[in-house]
Amino acid sequence: MKKAVKGLKDIGEFGFIDRISPGCLTRPEGVVRAIGDDAAAFRSTPGRLNLVTTDLLVERVHFLRGGASGRDLGYKALAVNLSDIAAMGGDAREAFVSLAVPADCSVDYLDDLYLGMKDLAASFQVNILGGDTTGSEQDLVINIAVWGEVDEERMLRRDGASPGDLICSTGSLGDSRAGLHLLLEGISPDSPAMETLLQAHNLPRPHLEEGSFLGASGGVSSAIDVSDGLSSDLGHLMDQSGTGALLRSSSIPVSPELREFCREFKFDPADFALAGGEDYTLLFTVPGQAAPDLQEAYRKEFRKPFHILGEMTSGSELVLENDDGTRDSLSRTGWNHFSGPSSI
Amino acid sequence: MKKAVKGLKDIGEFGFIDRISPGCLTRPEGVVRAIGDDAAAFRSTPGRLNLVTTDLLVERVHFLRGGASGRDLGYKALAVNLSDIAAMGGDAREAFVSLAVPADCSVDYLDDLYLGMKDLAASFQVNILGGDTTGSEQDLVINIAVWGEVDEERMLRRDGASPGDLICSTGSLGDSRAGLHLLLEGISPDSPAMETLLQAHNLPRPHLEEGSFLGASGGVSSAIDVSDGLSSDLGHLMDQSGTGALLRSSSIPVSPELREFCREFKFDPADFALAGGEDYTLLFTVPGQAAPDLQEAYRKEFRKPFHILGEMTSGSELVLENDDGTRDSLSRTGWNHFSGPSSI
Repeated sequence: MKKAVKGLKDIGEFGFIDRISPGCLTRPEGVVRAIGDDAAAFRSTPGRLNLVTTDLLVERVHFLRGGASGRDLGYKALAVNLSDIAAMGGDAREAFVSLAVPADCSVDYLDDLYLGMKDLAASFQVNILGGDTTGSEQDLVINIAVWGEVDEERMLRRDGASPGDLICSTGSLGDSRAGLHLLLEGISPDSPAMETLLQAHNLPRPHLEEGSFLGASGGVSSAIDVSDGLSSDLGHLMDQSGTGALLRSSSIPVSPELREFCREFKFDPADFALAGGEDYTLLFTVPGQAAPDLQEAYRKEFRKPFHILGEMTSGSELVLENDDGTRDSLSRTGWNHFSGPSSI
Repeated sequence: MKKAVKGLKDIGEFGFIDRISPGCLTRPEGVVRAIGDDAAAFRSTPGRLNLVTTDLLVERVHFLRGGASGRDLGYKALAVNLSDIAAMGGDAREAFVSLAVPADCSVDYLDDLYLGMKDLAASFQVNILGGDTTGSEQDLVINIAVWGEVDEERMLRRDGASPGDLICSTGSLGDSRAGLHLLLEGISPDSPAMETLLQAHNLPRPHLEEGSFLGASGGVSSAIDVSDGLSSDLGHLMDQSGTGALLRSSSIPVSPELREFCREFKFDPADFALAGGEDYTLLFTVPGQAAPDLQEAYRKEFRKPFHILGEMTSGSELVLENDDGTRDSLSRTGWNHFSGPSSI
């Protein structure tokens, strides 16, 4: 009997990374972060790091062309890359846009796509500096690479957390997944709350100022942006830092809009916050004794506090403490890149 | 009557670039080359430039999965990017690989793809430092971005040629197109010459050492890598420098292998050399008085001379001088990214 071809689905994204990584570094000097962080970091000038991140979006896997305006699609394609630079504490500087365009995609749609990118680029003083434009037989494909930089001592990384460090977020979680639900179910938003959730999904704000502030603070032990979902992305911090984590259910930040949505559609907000993904807030850890000063400075800078969700623990388990004090062990399921379209 | 949707085919790659360029630069300081050169060049350290180039390859447009081994495909996908850095006179340092993988693509094929990239990367001390891996509904998509660097004063650019400058090439032209012919016609190579042509198409060597040497020489007025074909790529130097050009038919470098191929299949080698494309040699210009010294130094370094094909002229025409002294005006047709697959 012939064995079926083994594909990416069988080994997963991280299995694939493990498989292809050996031999990728031919000149390790100067490389600070390679495959496996939010962005690669490498030195060319002493004390200063180059950051590069790249993200590939494919029609019918990541978005449906009819389901998103060109403008929203362009905005978000760039936003997810800027968010990766934010998660390194860096300044995003230059963007490179590659497009593979099928014949049935109008130039007007591409103009809109670029308008969305340019709007976001302008608001963070990012240049769109190059790229590649080519044809495609069927699907529209968008690859954006972003170059940024950061002082070496200010870089945020995934692997520095210790047991006892507080787990924090720069924003509430789950809104984007609720917005996606509205899109996928074809529900027209009929209230300001629903509009807010849709916007959280379509036009997420990359937390570049927050990342830069946290990197400059020197007090942050690890950081990541929430793209796959709280439990999944916290899992990356845990794996790379060698810790477990305890989340307190009552402390997970949920917006009033998500609460309203969950009341209306009979969902549990915790599910959206834990496994939703595409929030593009920053999830970070800070040693307990440094937290009060950081919170005070953060509040001064951003006129609102960051949220404290729980703490890193020894071991390797991810545990949720419920409101009644009982505890559940959580799996780290976030959004899986290999399973079906996510709209945008 | 409803007008048909206007697509990329109607405005062409360069029409598209003109259309989307306004508004792309939000922070022009430090930007030395933006959209429209072989790579973008921007400053972060005084006197030193970052170079970034990116290239998107889509199945059925740029390659046929069955028509190329994963290893050759991986090699070439990286080679074309390294060639862009070579055309800037830079050193290629870090590569970022994004893949969109359909379910029917085996992990073994991806392993081979990476092997091809790693082989080439190792031979030029380039790291594969990151990227993105995701799913695709149908076509395999490969985007590679390469970061390199160059001393500002050594950077090669497209726009510095003057009338009278000699037009030069670091290698012979047309071999790759002949190799593609063999592939597309399903002709098995039955001689060392045919093998050489196939190899020129499948495994082009990026001329990084040559580019670095030419940049360091200080004597080169413009440069580009030959990806679309001699007439088309020379056209870019002419357009950006504001010159015309005269090519001497007898001086266009054609390999013995291409001559043998053309004898056997009744082709004119000049057609392959002028319009073939994917040679990835460097095409450059040098003022006449600087040429002898440069040639001597080049010959010492590489143990062979560069080829002198003709000279830049005033005006804007591209003229071919035939062996009998008659002259033809040439159109600048190279390989068009928007017309059908090219295998790889």
